[in-house]
Amino acid sequence: MDKEEIINKLMAGEMKLYQIDKFTENATEALDIRREFIERHSNCELNQIANYTLDMEKAFSKNIENPIGTVQVPIGVVGPLKINGEHADDEFFVPLATSEGALLASVNRGCSAITASGGVNARVIGDKMTRAPVIKTDSVVEAVKVKSWFETKFDELKSIAESTTSHGKLVKIDPIIIVGNYVYPRFVYSTGDSMGMNMVTIATEKVLSKLYDDLGVHAIALSGNLCVDKKPAAINLVEGRGKTVVADILIPEEIVKSKLKTTAKAMEEVNIAKNLIGSAAAGSMAFNAHFANMIGAIFLATGQDEAHVVEGSLGITTAEDRDGDLYFAVSMPDLPIATIGGGTRLETASEGLSIIDCLGSGKVNKFAEIVISTVLAGELSLVGALAAGHLAKAHQELGR
Amino acid sequence: MDKEEIINKLMAGEMKLYQIDKFTENATEALDIRREFIERHSNCELNQIANYTLDMEKAFSKNIENPIGTVQVPIGVVGPLKINGEHADDEFFVPLATSEGALLASVNRGCSAITASGGVNARVIGDKMTRAPVIKTDSVVEAVKVKSWFETKFDELKSIAESTTSHGKLVKIDPIIIVGNYVYPRFVYSTGDSMGMNMVTIATEKVLSKLYDDLGVHAIALSGNLCVDKKPAAINLVEGRGKTVVADILIPEEIVKSKLKTTAKAMEEVNIAKNLIGSAAAGSMAFNAHFANMIGAIFLATGQDEAHVVEGSLGITTAEDRDGDLYFAVSMPDLPIATIGGGTRLETASEGLSIIDCLGSGKVNKFAEIVISTVLAGELSLVGALAAGHLAKAHQELGR
Amino acid sequence: MDKEEIINKLMAGEMKLYQIDKFTENATEALDIRREFIERHSNCELNQIANYTLDMEKAFSKNIENPIGTVQVPIGVVGPLKINGEHADDEFFVPLATSEGALLASVNRGCSAITASGGVNARVIGDKMTRAPVIKTDSVVEAVKVKSWFETKFDELKSIAESTTSHGKLVKIDPIIIVGNYVYPRFVYSTGDSMGMNMVTIATEKVLSKLYDDLGVHAIALSGNLCVDKKPAAINLVEGRGKTVVADILIPEEIVKSKLKTTAKAMEEVNIAKNLIGSAAAGSMAFNAHFANMIGAIFLATGQDEAHVVEGSLGITTAEDRDGDLYFAVSMPDLPIATIGGGTRLETASEGLSIIDCLGSGKVNKFAEIVISTVLAGELSLVGALAAGHLAKAHQELGR
Amino acid sequence: MDKEEIINKLMAGEMKLYQIDKFTENATEALDIRREFIERHSNCELNQIANYTLDMEKAFSKNIENPIGTVQVPIGVVGPLKINGEHADDEFFVPLATSEGALLASVNRGCSAITASGGVNARVIGDKMTRAPVIKTDSVVEAVKVKSWFETKFDELKSIAESTTSHGKLVKIDPIIIVGNYVYPRFVYSTGDSMGMNMVTIATEKVLSKLYDDLGVHAIALSGNLCVDKKPAAINLVEGRGKTVVADILIPEEIVKSKLKTTAKAMEEVNIAKNLIGSAAAGSMAFNAHFANMIGAIFLATGQDEAHVVEGSLGITTAEDRDGDLYFAVSMPDLPIATIGGGTRLETASEGLSIIDCLGSGKVNKFAEIVISTVLAGELSLVGALAAGHLAKAHQELGR
Repeated sequence: MDKEEIINKLMAGEMKLYQIDKFTENATEALDIRREFIERHSNCELNQIANYTLDMEKAFSKNIENPIGTVQVPIGVVGPLKINGEHADDEFFVPLATSEGALLASVNRGCSAITASGGVNARVIGDKMTRAPVIKTDSVVEAVKVKSWFETKFDELKSIAESTTSHGKLVKIDPIIIVGNYVYPRFVYSTGDSMGMNMVTIATEKVLSKLYDDLGVHAIALSGNLCVDKKPAAINLVEGRGKTVVADILIPEEIVKSKLKTTAKAMEEVNIAKNLIGSAAAGSMAFNAHFANMIGAIFLATGQDEAHVVEGSLGITTAEDRDGDLYFAVSMPDLPIATIGGGTRLETASEGLSIIDCLGSGKVNKFAEIVISTVLAGELSLVGALAAGHLAKAHQELGR
Repeated sequence: MDKEEIINKLMAGEMKLYQIDKFTENATEALDIRREFIERHSNCELNQIANYTLDMEKAFSKNIENPIGTVQVPIGVVGPLKINGEHADDEFFVPLATSEGALLASVNRGCSAITASGGVNARVIGDKMTRAPVIKTDSVVEAVKVKSWFETKFDELKSIAESTTSHGKLVKIDPIIIVGNYVYPRFVYSTGDSMGMNMVTIATEKVLSKLYDDLGVHAIALSGNLCVDKKPAAINLVEGRGKTVVADILIPEEIVKSKLKTTAKAMEEVNIAKNLIGSAAAGSMAFNAHFANMIGAIFLATGQDEAHVVEGSLGITTAEDRDGDLYFAVSMPDLPIATIGGGTRLETASEGLSIIDCLGSGKVNKFAEIVISTVLAGELSLVGALAAGHLAKAHQELGR
Repeated sequence: MDKEEIINKLMAGEMKLYQIDKFTENATEALDIRREFIERHSNCELNQIANYTLDMEKAFSKNIENPIGTVQVPIGVVGPLKINGEHADDEFFVPLATSEGALLASVNRGCSAITASGGVNARVIGDKMTRAPVIKTDSVVEAVKVKSWFETKFDELKSIAESTTSHGKLVKIDPIIIVGNYVYPRFVYSTGDSMGMNMVTIATEKVLSKLYDDLGVHAIALSGNLCVDKKPAAINLVEGRGKTVVADILIPEEIVKSKLKTTAKAMEEVNIAKNLIGSAAAGSMAFNAHFANMIGAIFLATGQDEAHVVEGSLGITTAEDRDGDLYFAVSMPDLPIATIGGGTRLETASEGLSIIDCLGSGKVNKFAEIVISTVLAGELSLVGALAAGHLAKAHQELGR
Repeated sequence: MDKEEIINKLMAGEMKLYQIDKFTENATEALDIRREFIERHSNCELNQIANYTLDMEKAFSKNIENPIGTVQVPIGVVGPLKINGEHADDEFFVPLATSEGALLASVNRGCSAITASGGVNARVIGDKMTRAPVIKTDSVVEAVKVKSWFETKFDELKSIAESTTSHGKLVKIDPIIIVGNYVYPRFVYSTGDSMGMNMVTIATEKVLSKLYDDLGVHAIALSGNLCVDKKPAAINLVEGRGKTVVADILIPEEIVKSKLKTTAKAMEEVNIAKNLIGSAAAGSMAFNAHFANMIGAIFLATGQDEAHVVEGSLGITTAEDRDGDLYFAVSMPDLPIATIGGGTRLETASEGLSIIDCLGSGKVNKFAEIVISTVLAGELSLVGALAAGHLAKAHQELGR
């Protein structure tokens, strides 16, 4: 079938989008036909989307189905950002991709204040990926037996889970929550440099087969929403998920004044009124100013899963006036990231990671420290700007 | 100064990134120098990032600072997706940009079941954008006076706010929450086809000037986190933010069986165990399977703010077995979107919007209905897959 | 049937507890038989429970079924507590009933610091009682129609609701939340001096009859948990429920030192670390130290519904060092109380209310101001004690 | 000083309430003088409050300060309630104290349906009491050291903590949450039959002394609100606090019909619409109908701490139509109770516990199973009543 025939069949509804690949030599040819069909169907031009340079054969096999090209999002850099981490200990220029004008300028201002003050201290204090299926039993008595089975068999289950993966380790199955006749065991793994969602799903499924063999009960869903993946959830705050990271800095009074145009006292006050009390009054689960902006931009620049911005948005910002100097800290309990696999394979994302020397194995903790340091820079700048009272003015001047 | 001199100064720390623009003819030249500096500084190659086709002069003026090129993310389409909305009433192919393999295949399966069943019913039931400053007074007695000032002067304040914008309307200032000596008035606007954050910030600031003139008290921050922007928050669930949208469908038993390989009863059960009870037990604020995946992908394909994925991830999925047929619904209280301004200006995003005929003025409600219909397709598919027990298998086969 | 026969039948399971009243002259006689049966059945002595002085005939008709006597709980007083309210403007001795040693001593210390500082400022800023049924329709399209019906018919529905009550007023039906095919209209009433739950239930049911007559749809439950009664819920924080009350005080440096044995700075710090940040990290909905203790004790002393302690426990405490003086405030969004009806009729509760001159009509706002002032006293004392580092010591000395 | 002199001094503000005890022979004499003073000060009569039979000398030494008598609250019984627990395996009449008319009648109806169906299955699956101080350090780097100190020294710290108590055991210190420079270690103890708050406070303080000796850092508050005591908090849902208990029952179709006047299908539907979806939409932390009512009443009848009703109100109710029969379950993650110490010492409370043979050592798990079974009875009855549509009617007939 040639291109025209395929498009005609698509227009007539006689062929499905994914069937194109059966009649074409490779993914790229299918992609072009698919895009041409969409242009004709929707009466639009997709010239820019067609102008990609990614290897779409590779992307088609790992990252997307029914491709028609790529979207381009501007990427810029902020820095130098000095970081005193255990894994990241240097000055960095950090890539951020966004369409929100003023964001990089703002984060950059934070970097400037940070670097002038000697750098951010950053530490990774937790590292895990989780999967929590939901198992349905007949009764609470049965549910208690299932819970007990997980607890007493742990060593054997660990072997079973780890037989499916070369990198993942099953650290614990805890908590195991019972609600009526449902059991939600939370499998906690370490996954190295990959984000690990698929790894932990496969390992967990293997354990569930054993459960079925032993007790005859089975999971009604491989994820029972206690994982919790891509949703804001208190269990992730309390237990941590992905990387758990903390960072702080002490900014001398003169730098608060010269770089942020305000005072430590004013920033402490804004932080309490907005990030702590305001969030509490709003029933918010995030006690910060705008973690999501920095997380969204750095995730996009480095090939992370954009849906994980939800989890990365959680966390707490604190600020304290120390005799005129500003102590400023951010804490992120739930940061799912990777330096291998998934979207990091895409060429521009790989390049983004290479800017901060975080591409590939053995780099994920370094990357975590850079991410939180960038988040701190953005928080510092926005809280400072609010304290200085020039938020709206900044928006007006940047003309949007 | 020529390129080499600039890069040398940058390498030596004698020039800041944003200063490049002072010595270059245009943004594009500065961009190239900046990227070349980064390559040299970080000892990396950024050939792909350099390969953009967006108009970076325009992007530089509105969307980003310190640009070095663009990231590319694969974009594909799902469909046809039949929608019976008030604003979207047609079959659509919906653009999604992602690097998460299997996502489009999964959503597409949902579209197939939907279209075969006659289409999704979608309705926009709320439309607002909010800004809530925090005002610090001396005491609760003063705070009560400020609250009262907002309530009694509303008509005048409305005029003042609306004098700053041609499209925005101040609908109400409610609730006005007092915590000790702090007052948090939530300004609620309608903003038409733009997302409106900047519009409402400017309008609100104007009202705050009047407050200062009248009572001598002032906001200590233009946003006091009761807005709530880019953070998961109960106030947005209860009051709504952005568009509030609902959608549903009744899927005949034979289509549940043929397309989803499961039964209405099994899907109802998974939905209760996972999306309702599991989320409750996890302390989650989102009672769904994976709204964030679809929101993340459609936002990226159409130039929305990726940080708003946080808000878009909220909402509830319900499922009911109706004598073998499946009633399935999704509700989204907090969907901040736009069809003009911001990232929608970027050429690939504009093209993405044009695929669904949602580019420009008068299209935002149509777009909202398409977004929620796509979310429903993704939820339907994943809940169906979990019910059919083949989630992990799908991941294995797609080889990641 | 005489007593012995009745007890024998009860022992044999041939009679139910509530059937005793059919064979006895009055509630008191039935009560004695019932208690004697329990003593024999459980082989225990209930001499103290038998030693009541309440009018159990009256209690039986309004407050309890199957009575066997009363429980006694020690009641004490704290004070004098000076209050500068709109409704309570005097020095009060406040009754508290509890079995938790050290609680009254602690609250009393707070009263002492308050009165020495000139008194608490208290204000009632909201007053409402709510009922939110859940209506099930066929689809989101139907659900939107029901929502619209409530909005357009409001004046008529207000008349219908108010026809069932002499004191209640229907203020608004808002928000009206749609989740899939379910509609949750939140009916908001003012209810005067009674707590009003029954009043609003009856009035709301009448409106639902009209809904059924007009549209043929009906509520599947008179309460759909958006009220939200006796459960901790963000909607009550945001919208308020019962009385919404705020209170504050400025305590001079010398009184912080002499009465609380600490400093304003130390108390500000404890408040931030514990009540704000600690609560945030715990996923708590209450940002205070121990509102529930004072609420529990004053509710018990005055005949309020103990289950409403759940709602009364919500709220935020703030503290600020003002040049050595301490600014301290508490905010309570959700305080359901009454000075007539319910448990206030019981003789000891009536006496409890009479101690603060809050028994009967026209007193409920005064009572609200006294309640929050007492809560402030307890918070002040505990935060002060923590700051002074002697909490555990106090417990040891009080010997429990 | 004689009575008249003391009262005159109190009236003149020359003596404090607690000073009376210095001039009287015993607590009872002081109590009478105090009450007489209040009567004169507030111009009220407190005859009923004076009519107590509790041993107030004992109460004064352990349970209350500044006593003036007791409040009486009606106590009744519901039952027989058949329970098939591990610790409670019998038919019980359960004592409930309340002033809310219709509550016992409603719970009793639930008991009737339960007992006719063969009884509730109840299990205790967790048992712990917690205390989480907040430690302030200089920086995140210091905070990480403190966290590490707790982790590596656990065995030694366990010995130190347990040296302060004969019954308490330190099970773990986990999680240890860091927010900026603050560290919140959650000490988890088992405490036997006492509720244990004071025990764990004293034990934890001892460990903190060791921390100070070793690292020179100290807690700024013995409780940092991650305990979480007497506040609704997600950490307690996830980790459990007090007893974690589950209970269920399968009710045959004919009993659903004859006792509850409805169907399993209707009750399943009400439970989903109200307790699951309604609570989710309200941002509620409790997914049940009215746990707090039963908890409030049984706590009052047995001398538990009324402020703990807040924690006891949390939990989830589930309901499932099983071919016409009703499967019904309740889950309570956070139930802090005791059968010795505290308010259980008061004579009427001791009698209340003796009705269910739960007074004294070795009884607390039995008591936990009775509490949750009573909660299940109340939930069953209310969900049934809502399903049967006669809630408001019940209220009208009971005449309040």
